[in-house]
Amino acid sequence: MTDNDLNTTVPLSTEALSEHVTQLFSQHMPFNQLLGLQINKISHDKVEIRMPWNDKLMGNPIKKILHGGVTAAILDTVGGLMAILYATKDIDNISIDEFRKTLPNVGTIDMRVDYLRPGKGEEFIATAEVIRKGKKVAVCRMELHNEAGVHIAFGTGTYMIA
Amino acid sequence: MTDNDLNTTVPLSTEALSEHVTQLFSQHMPFNQLLGLQINKISHDKVEIRMPWNDKLMGNPIKKILHGGVTAAILDTVGGLMAILYATKDIDNISIDEFRKTLPNVGTIDMRVDYLRPGKGEEFIATAEVIRKGKKVAVCRMELHNEAGVHIAFGTGTYMIA
Amino acid sequence: MTDNDLNTTVPLSTEALSEHVTQLFSQHMPFNQLLGLQINKISHDKVEIRMPWNDKLMGNPIKKILHGGVTAAILDTVGGLMAILYATKDIDNISIDEFRKTLPNVGTIDMRVDYLRPGKGEEFIATAEVIRKGKKVAVCRMELHNEAGVHIAFGTGTYMIA
Amino acid sequence: MTDNDLNTTVPLSTEALSEHVTQLFSQHMPFNQLLGLQINKISHDKVEIRMPWNDKLMGNPIKKILHGGVTAAILDTVGGLMAILYATKDIDNISIDEFRKTLPNVGTIDMRVDYLRPGKGEEFIATAEVIRKGKKVAVCRMELHNEAGVHIAFGTGTYMIA
Repeated sequence: MTDNDLNTTVPLSTEALSEHVTQLFSQHMPFNQLLGLQINKISHDKVEIRMPWNDKLMGNPIKKILHGGVTAAILDTVGGLMAILYATKDIDNISIDEFRKTLPNVGTIDMRVDYLRPGKGEEFIATAEVIRKGKKVAVCRMELHNEAGVHIAFGTGTYMIA
Repeated sequence: MTDNDLNTTVPLSTEALSEHVTQLFSQHMPFNQLLGLQINKISHDKVEIRMPWNDKLMGNPIKKILHGGVTAAILDTVGGLMAILYATKDIDNISIDEFRKTLPNVGTIDMRVDYLRPGKGEEFIATAEVIRKGKKVAVCRMELHNEAGVHIAFGTGTYMIA
Repeated sequence: MTDNDLNTTVPLSTEALSEHVTQLFSQHMPFNQLLGLQINKISHDKVEIRMPWNDKLMGNPIKKILHGGVTAAILDTVGGLMAILYATKDIDNISIDEFRKTLPNVGTIDMRVDYLRPGKGEEFIATAEVIRKGKKVAVCRMELHNEAGVHIAFGTGTYMIA
Repeated sequence: MTDNDLNTTVPLSTEALSEHVTQLFSQHMPFNQLLGLQINKISHDKVEIRMPWNDKLMGNPIKKILHGGVTAAILDTVGGLMAILYATKDIDNISIDEFRKTLPNVGTIDMRVDYLRPGKGEEFIATAEVIRKGKKVAVCRMELHNEAGVHIAFGTGTYMIA
């Protein structure tokens, strides 16, 4: 799918919306590419992002663990994505144009990260759920695990969604 | 200065310690290099990090602003560095060996980021100060500004320091 | 001033608004009375609350210090009040009725408290400033000091204001 | 049980320790009494506190909901109690004297509260679990529900435990 394939004013199925978000995410957000982030699952209720280990993401090469900033970045990303998807959940017939008009209003207001264990692993999986739902603001909780299920970090983020 | 130049067991001046930390920071922490972080000022009381704009660090290319994760990463980095420097402030004659023994114990416990304004600019400057001082834990407040003095974000981080 | 003195639909000066808020605060918010909170200063730019020491507010009678929950409560209160005052700053001719219509929408979304030193003192002073200003959300930073100027705690709160 | 019944230097069962903590909590911490806090369950793995509705705890009498500071206070209390209990979990034969020596070192470093829904109900139940376990620092997550199971708030607290 390319932008050219879309009639940007006709209603969009949630599948097409998800596809559109995935495309924006992976092709138009440079820092996501730098981190190697990939969307695993995406719906209005659940988002999952994966990130393979990469030596460039190390904070401490002696212990071979993720930089704390990488953990914060992936948690903010999965939380923000979940917030956007939630924000558009109840818009039955959203068009790409309407969706794009919403995007500039979306942003992180604040985030807390709790670092539980060293960021070791071959692959990292970030998930998010919405815990507070409003018209203008959503609050998400996020989690980071490695491929073996070890829980590395929690996040809590407050997002502007409209 | 290279590692070979150091007798690792003799006492270290604060200047030499700062130089050693700067070297570790820029040469041995890959993610700092990926972000383009550079230490501007470093002492037991004040740390300042700069980061030039780089298109790879964008979250949103339409608005050309920093990814929120980059903001979190630079704030965590400057806070952690300030915490380490504070932790070694009162050790009169710390040797490199002693300093290196402390390092594995240092880590972020939790961090809050408050996003105030879009991350626009040619260069970003992150600073930190210690607000709570203990034997085992230090709490820092961090700020991110751009080259024009626009205040982009606040951070508050709790760090294990021993 | 009593409610009866007010024509609730005519425009309100900021002085009258402040007086109205102070009255609501001290007469109609039972928990503020339980804590002994008093408004010292109130304007659209600055709020200051004082709380005299009271043995009932102790968490730890051996050390005679404030319960951490009291510190959180006074910080949330001063931050919320600052957010309300900020929210109505640009409404030139707000009436009491309009102000009262805004109130039910105001509320804390999230708050962080950083405990710096034990809550000792004869009197405590809480202040707040707005660090992020939006149409729907304001973020405040709060501080708690004792009468001798000892800095006891920081707070950061995100408030819904409309 | 009164203090006089205890030989303060002999080892203490976890049951006796829990009883001792409960006694300290309800008889010697004035602000807990002011809020009407009662310990429902207490062990090294789980703490549950209940608080009946009381008009004095209202922030907003029109909407009849808890003051946000009350929510913060009960979350901080249940988290701190959980942290203390965790801290003494692995001390096989702790005496009351040893336990009391630990207490002055215990304290909240920082806490985040996320307000999810208005604090309405006849009774409120606060629970806590430890998410990060260290020798010096524990991090807890806390929850507040009402008697009908409505989830009112989340908390995350970082506690000094030794």
